[in-house]
Amino acid sequence: MKKIVVALGGNALGKSLSEQLAAVKNTAKAIADLISDGNEVVITHGNGPQVGRIDSAMAALCREDSTQERTPLSMCVAMSQAYIGYDIQNALREELLSRGIHKPVATIVTQVLVDGDDPALKNPTKPIGRFMTEEQAKALSEKLGFSVREDAGRGWRRVVPSPVPQKIVELDAIRASVEDGSVVICCGGGGIPVRKVGNFHKGVGAVIDKDSVSALLADKLNADILLILTAIDKVRINYGKPDELSLDSMSIEDAREYIAQGQFAEGSMLPKVEAALSFVKGDSGRAAIIAKLSQAGEAAKGKAGTVLFN
Amino acid sequence: MKKIVVALGGNALGKSLSEQLAAVKNTAKAIADLISDGNEVVITHGNGPQVGRIDSAMAALCREDSTQERTPLSMCVAMSQAYIGYDIQNALREELLSRGIHKPVATIVTQVLVDGDDPALKNPTKPIGRFMTEEQAKALSEKLGFSVREDAGRGWRRVVPSPVPQKIVELDAIRASVEDGSVVICCGGGGIPVRKVGNFHKGVGAVIDKDSVSALLADKLNADILLILTAIDKVRINYGKPDELSLDSMSIEDAREYIAQGQFAEGSMLPKVEAALSFVKGDSGRAAIIAKLSQAGEAAKGKAGTVLFN
Repeated sequence: MKKIVVALGGNALGKSLSEQLAAVKNTAKAIADLISDGNEVVITHGNGPQVGRIDSAMAALCREDSTQERTPLSMCVAMSQAYIGYDIQNALREELLSRGIHKPVATIVTQVLVDGDDPALKNPTKPIGRFMTEEQAKALSEKLGFSVREDAGRGWRRVVPSPVPQKIVELDAIRASVEDGSVVICCGGGGIPVRKVGNFHKGVGAVIDKDSVSALLADKLNADILLILTAIDKVRINYGKPDELSLDSMSIEDAREYIAQGQFAEGSMLPKVEAALSFVKGDSGRAAIIAKLSQAGEAAKGKAGTVLFN
Repeated sequence: MKKIVVALGGNALGKSLSEQLAAVKNTAKAIADLISDGNEVVITHGNGPQVGRIDSAMAALCREDSTQERTPLSMCVAMSQAYIGYDIQNALREELLSRGIHKPVATIVTQVLVDGDDPALKNPTKPIGRFMTEEQAKALSEKLGFSVREDAGRGWRRVVPSPVPQKIVELDAIRASVEDGSVVICCGGGGIPVRKVGNFHKGVGAVIDKDSVSALLADKLNADILLILTAIDKVRINYGKPDELSLDSMSIEDAREYIAQGQFAEGSMLPKVEAALSFVKGDSGRAAIIAKLSQAGEAAKGKAGTVLFN
């Protein structure tokens, strides 16, 4: 039995409610494969499209009714945890039951501490919400004061700050639930970003990278594997060039070298490799695996995806 | 040490985000009093104003952008659990730390099974969202097809179906967390109403009564006390009449008799007394207490509020 933190990317959830309801069925199969094999699984996920949608809805409410208060982005992240967690826990419960596995599945609302002086808070880089044309994006930017940016060749999106996660506030509750045998869904959308003000945690207008917080969670739970599931089967170098190469594995040194060479796209493969690296370097028995969602089971056995080892 | 399920009413949360942030500080004090006294505490809460606000925002998004999908009410209930749970867990954590108590606090996203044939699904009775004038309410009803109703003398509100809770889907995970020593916030807004379709749980467009699900939770956790916290200090009979009487206690028989006499207002005191009754009649060692939020600590000792005993 291995303890595996599974980080789900956008393809595990889809971009709309109906896409999400369909996507989580496949996601549940992939995760149930890991559980059927006897592994202890903790699930994290992103929230880019979802938190953007919730934020847009809350803003639309204020435009329709000027007596309504603005809803902070941190509260929108909180809501996205239940928006997504509910569908994942429901689909996973169904899939486990259909395999005769009776195991509690629970979503825990998670706050994550960031440093109020993190320079990332002044430099928005994290895409959220829907893809737009350049014209739509620039109009939005002008109208609402949002930062917008071209996202990895897929179109324009709003960008928000993405500070470094420092501490998972609900870690003890998460650990206890995992040890009790629950499949825990937590740190959704990177966690609700908060900063310390005395003993109080004040919400921060940002979205933490889910791979980064997943590495922190895997480290603190002392997981065996950080499994980052995405839309592609393996990490590639020299991407799109004649000498493009799919990697079965990378050492820590390889990963550092490739990062220095600029092999990985910002906001796409780079945060995944960086998260893998930060988890693996903490302990020699650890592996981080970046793999395709549908190959999760094989990847956890080292038979698919790209393994980063210490 | 007693196991106490605490059901928080609207006054524990306020009606807007800023009211909520202020209200949960007092709520946290009341709950911390129970924990300081050595009790094991599980927290549930309503979501009337909040789920109404989220639903309105999601509807506003669709009106602004016709390509957006409608968000089902069940998903709005899910979001309200994190919207409220985040603020409660944060405030309670702060209050406990300020008293030197290190105890995990966690919100668990909870689904609650209802019967798809529950006649309540065809008869909307549960008020959600903001209070309106009669004219505003009737205009809303005409424009959006909502049911509206006058709510206990406080104004007009939208009403939605409120089916009977049958089963708490995440009960095992909740029980395990409670036994591990976490303060668990769950069944928020009565739980996400779902009905069984094979092994799948399909969302239902309804809001379950939080007192009713709290009684079910307290029963299943075999709690000692169901503590229903509200804005008034004691249950009253002959309310507003010359012979009005505040009750220190009620037997099961008293409660049944008062209900038959129509002593309690629908949607206000009636569901509280009914929930108290349904919990207490399950086991002779149990007590249900209806009390004022600020007197939670005293109420749990039998020194405030109205006790319903078996």
